[in-house]
Amino acid sequence: MAKGNISLNSITPINEDFGRWYTDVVKNAELIDYSSVRGCVILRPYGYAIWENIQRIMDGMFKETGHENVYMPMFIPESLLQKEKEHVEGFAPEVAWVTHGGSEPLAERLCVRPTSETLFCDHYSRIVHSYRDLPKLYNQWCSVVRWEKSTRPFLRSREFLWQEGHTLHETSEEAVAETMQMLSIYQQVCEEYLRIPVIAGRKTDSEKFAGAESTYTVEAMMHDGRALQSGTSHYFGDMFARAFNIQFADRENKISYPFQTSWGVSTRIIGAIIMTHGDDRGLILPPAIAPTQIVIVPIAEHKEGVMDAVDKLSEELKGSYRVMVDRSDNSPGWKFAQHEMKGVPLRIELGPRDLEQNNCVMVRRDNLSKRVVSLEGIKDEIALEMAAIEDGLFEKALNNRLERTYECADYKTLAEHSKTNGFYKAMWCGSSECEEKLKEQLDISSRCIPFSQTEISFECVCCGKPAKHMVYWGRAY
Amino acid sequence: MAKGNISLNSITPINEDFGRWYTDVVKNAELIDYSSVRGCVILRPYGYAIWENIQRIMDGMFKETGHENVYMPMFIPESLLQKEKEHVEGFAPEVAWVTHGGSEPLAERLCVRPTSETLFCDHYSRIVHSYRDLPKLYNQWCSVVRWEKSTRPFLRSREFLWQEGHTLHETSEEAVAETMQMLSIYQQVCEEYLRIPVIAGRKTDSEKFAGAESTYTVEAMMHDGRALQSGTSHYFGDMFARAFNIQFADRENKISYPFQTSWGVSTRIIGAIIMTHGDDRGLILPPAIAPTQIVIVPIAEHKEGVMDAVDKLSEELKGSYRVMVDRSDNSPGWKFAQHEMKGVPLRIELGPRDLEQNNCVMVRRDNLSKRVVSLEGIKDEIALEMAAIEDGLFEKALNNRLERTYECADYKTLAEHSKTNGFYKAMWCGSSECEEKLKEQLDISSRCIPFSQTEISFECVCCGKPAKHMVYWGRAY
Repeated sequence: MAKGNISLNSITPINEDFGRWYTDVVKNAELIDYSSVRGCVILRPYGYAIWENIQRIMDGMFKETGHENVYMPMFIPESLLQKEKEHVEGFAPEVAWVTHGGSEPLAERLCVRPTSETLFCDHYSRIVHSYRDLPKLYNQWCSVVRWEKSTRPFLRSREFLWQEGHTLHETSEEAVAETMQMLSIYQQVCEEYLRIPVIAGRKTDSEKFAGAESTYTVEAMMHDGRALQSGTSHYFGDMFARAFNIQFADRENKISYPFQTSWGVSTRIIGAIIMTHGDDRGLILPPAIAPTQIVIVPIAEHKEGVMDAVDKLSEELKGSYRVMVDRSDNSPGWKFAQHEMKGVPLRIELGPRDLEQNNCVMVRRDNLSKRVVSLEGIKDEIALEMAAIEDGLFEKALNNRLERTYECADYKTLAEHSKTNGFYKAMWCGSSECEEKLKEQLDISSRCIPFSQTEISFECVCCGKPAKHMVYWGRAY
Repeated sequence: MAKGNISLNSITPINEDFGRWYTDVVKNAELIDYSSVRGCVILRPYGYAIWENIQRIMDGMFKETGHENVYMPMFIPESLLQKEKEHVEGFAPEVAWVTHGGSEPLAERLCVRPTSETLFCDHYSRIVHSYRDLPKLYNQWCSVVRWEKSTRPFLRSREFLWQEGHTLHETSEEAVAETMQMLSIYQQVCEEYLRIPVIAGRKTDSEKFAGAESTYTVEAMMHDGRALQSGTSHYFGDMFARAFNIQFADRENKISYPFQTSWGVSTRIIGAIIMTHGDDRGLILPPAIAPTQIVIVPIAEHKEGVMDAVDKLSEELKGSYRVMVDRSDNSPGWKFAQHEMKGVPLRIELGPRDLEQNNCVMVRRDNLSKRVVSLEGIKDEIALEMAAIEDGLFEKALNNRLERTYECADYKTLAEHSKTNGFYKAMWCGSSECEEKLKEQLDISSRCIPFSQTEISFECVCCGKPAKHMVYWGRAY
């Protein structure tokens, strides 16, 4: 397969043109292929396997917290989409419309779901009657469609895969607690598994989800200093319940409206992984979601004993890791480059000279450090190395964020720092006029009002009026 | 939740009106809800959990045989759909068309995939160049849309979930072997896991997939004697490769066209499970895919020691089975009926009197047999009981099929037997005229030409000309 490919080394250096580097990586690491539908990509086996690993981790966490999976139709009748006013205004401009079934025009056109609040509400209105039916803790794994003008693999695609949780509760307290619980699960997924440090907080009103009372987010910083929203959790109050007439008999037997949440993470998160950890040699995958965690590359495999030792090692590791032996007829150098491009966390090289001393060579993908390790007790060494990789990835990402985070007590400092991409911590009065101004004048937007607040000054960085919150500002993907 | 529901006993008796019984079961067992999109249903948690279990089993088998998952766009440009002539003729009349993105009409309309051969071929034409790139063994889990006029939950839905495998091979021999391998995996899934005996064979030309050279099928018989096609595997030859210009340099460095297969199983299979195993009390689920395999119902749970014993038993079984303790405040009788409706394979009742003697009561869902069993060594008893349930389900289904299978050596016998639903084994000359005649005159269609042939007579049951094959005929869902 090597022969037909572009040279693996031909990717754009990461600090020369980050956008081109990104596109080169998603193609060369064989994550995606462009399809003949503009704005839609194909998730190739390697890209999809990353998503499967993320799914498995998240699905386990959802189930542990009592959530159940369901599947709703992919179509929403126009009249149903229009039931909640703010919601339809937010989504209608970017939906794809089905107008014909076979050769016949439909009586009512259907949109391909951009998100499924309306479908869940419609279902809930039929199945929820009493407080005994609550809470409803549903989630679905599916694809959604948003007819974006400009697209980019993983980051903005006309169709993308995601999970969307939709829950319904007796009280607003319960619904708020659910919103927070799911945000903290997202934070855990990002930080513990994907090794991406995030800032958790609330979105300002102008950045919140169409129809939500409040939107919470985990925001990550990419290698180039831009922000990427990595998961959102919305609290709806009872607005949707009222719009869809979801009612239940409460504990006092009075008719009440339940309170609702929704929360989602999409394949965008794969974009975050690429742009947080990658380097000039390509992808660097965190071990928890790497399709291959360890690649064993035989050196001089025709020499006696080499393949036996390789097979033995592979067998030994199989129960604990996703291991692959590269048996292709490419040269070792080519193999190294290929698995570096694909971001395999750990490479083990095994050749006749290593074997003589019962050793192997272990190479970390994240910092390319190389060590000679005894095959005796290698599993312990690998466990240590994997932990070191995990630490290294998180630390590098965190350092990048800290280096690019600026405390800006006044407008001048903000204006100066915002010439470089990064996070700018600055005080805000709470008005959308100031937000709008900063967008126009400095091309930055509010990322979130972090839960962890620091009082940098007492005045809004924009208008000088008394400040209400410290906000993270930045430029977002 | 009990209070709001229709009485569980209100389902139509299975032998009174099988169609209504089926509809009652899918609703009352909470497998589906109807949606506001006509012809599309909602898979509720219990229905979706069955699908997840089937998915996990099948996905494991696919991966073990070297297949990789991918994700293709859900849209197919009209021009792409039209590339293979037979294929488009088969599917175009029943596709849903997207004509607008946001407020703008699309330059070319897109159909929502009814199946994805065209998308896979388009992708393969870009990524396959050399014999080194072969085979490609891809599968995808997704939903597809077919704009059917009349629909029925699981059996025929405008949108349904499925897996579709699409593979590409150097030689026709390899592709044929793949077609057969996947059919035999489907047979194994049906028989070993779902406990549904099937007839494996080849479809006649008039029943094969649009664009296929040959279609293979596993056919099951439902409780009422009708047939349900439970999985299909298609061999395409190189017709699609030629239509989509997929070419590769072979081992002699000559340009060749590869050979292709596709194969699929959908949520229809859940319909097959319901209609094969169910009875007057509702669903009966085979243990391998039952969301709850064992339900423990406490009797007089307020009595000292009962809940402790229940919790202890539940803990003991958790590692080996999907266990649920019904802690609701419904009466034991209500609980029994509810879990019988939902088809939970095994029920364990535990009350103070049982406890006195360190016993519990075990009730099999399939034959409702009841046994008092010691809590000492209960895991061994359960293992035996589960195996007995599996055997019982298969045997009952097989007996139903055998009783309703008729060998028909001549037309008169066939005409007589075909008054009752069933499988009719009869000889066939191979002409579609005879197939058409039998459909018109007796309202039966060919289900398959089984691999296992018996020479019932020497002449076609319809025209009397020399027979080529023994065919299973029947009425299909």
